[in-house]
Amino acid sequence: MTRDRWFRFVGGERGSWVIESNTRVIGDPLATAARLDIRDEADHSADSAWPAAWALRGVRSNERYTTQAEHERLAASSAGLGRAEATMGALIPIRKSPAWWALSQDQRRDVFEGQSRHIAASMRYLPAVARRLFHCRDIAGETFDFLTWFEYAPEHAGAFDELVATLRATAEWTYVDREVDIRVRRDARNG
Amino acid sequence: MTRDRWFRFVGGERGSWVIESNTRVIGDPLATAARLDIRDEADHSADSAWPAAWALRGVRSNERYTTQAEHERLAASSAGLGRAEATMGALIPIRKSPAWWALSQDQRRDVFEGQSRHIAASMRYLPAVARRLFHCRDIAGETFDFLTWFEYAPEHAGAFDELVATLRATAEWTYVDREVDIRVRRDARNG
Repeated sequence: MTRDRWFRFVGGERGSWVIESNTRVIGDPLATAARLDIRDEADHSADSAWPAAWALRGVRSNERYTTQAEHERLAASSAGLGRAEATMGALIPIRKSPAWWALSQDQRRDVFEGQSRHIAASMRYLPAVARRLFHCRDIAGETFDFLTWFEYAPEHAGAFDELVATLRATAEWTYVDREVDIRVRRDARNG
Repeated sequence: MTRDRWFRFVGGERGSWVIESNTRVIGDPLATAARLDIRDEADHSADSAWPAAWALRGVRSNERYTTQAEHERLAASSAGLGRAEATMGALIPIRKSPAWWALSQDQRRDVFEGQSRHIAASMRYLPAVARRLFHCRDIAGETFDFLTWFEYAPEHAGAFDELVATLRATAEWTYVDREVDIRVRRDARNG
């Protein structure tokens, strides 16, 4: 990934991540694809040679719920993307319901952390699981609200499953009305 | 305006709002234009016949700072857009500095309301001044972070000037590094 803020996650025949599973959790599924490619949003150079089954755009943006104290704890514990040992990845696109978006900021924060402990629960999996959030609710034409991208080593695959299961059992997840869980394995041969 | 979320504010030769002033407050100005047209983002039907001096895209999105109690007070006092008597308008595009966007949510909220009383100060001008916020920081290619659109009757023009001056004197505005203030008057003859 470059330092730009806009990206496309492209499912198709090309990319350095082999798609090992593509699971509909709730709502509409995503079409089957062999590989995942992460491209700059503006880079369409591969589009004609490598048609995509789907392409999801997302933007890195400012934090929406994290306090300064939480930010500092997260920053001190987090690993970056691209670690050599982190050969497994997950792309989890989600959409939240209109009821979620109609809540005020303090109500969403209360569900997110007060009730659901989203940050506190995730912190236990640092630095093993590296994470990056992309926003897409405000991008015209996108059908998801967020894309979350994770990278981890094979020995932490069980821990990652536990993290995902923990989050899906929270009050926050009662507002999730579409979710797909795509697991990938790095393979640079066709990247 | 329709019920869709994405809009373009187009400065050019066409539109139901005559531009009466176009003032650079800080940072780069916007080019001179005779009229302002507010279009659906996806509506490009007038583009070739009516070339634009500039076009600013924005999206209506969820609230970012308002608490539920503030939301209810605002909703109870606010007027809608399109009132017959509200023949004056203002489009104020702003950009905030990287320092603002690096702040955590609680820090931004503290500057926004704790220090700057953005909501409390604005509330005094309701329902005279109708307001709608559009986000553009996360739209690829846009140079501003927000577009705020205001509508008011001529007898409230002084009050609107006072509101704008009050906000510009706040701690929040020390983070504004580009701002343009466009004042308009409704004239449906060329809309």
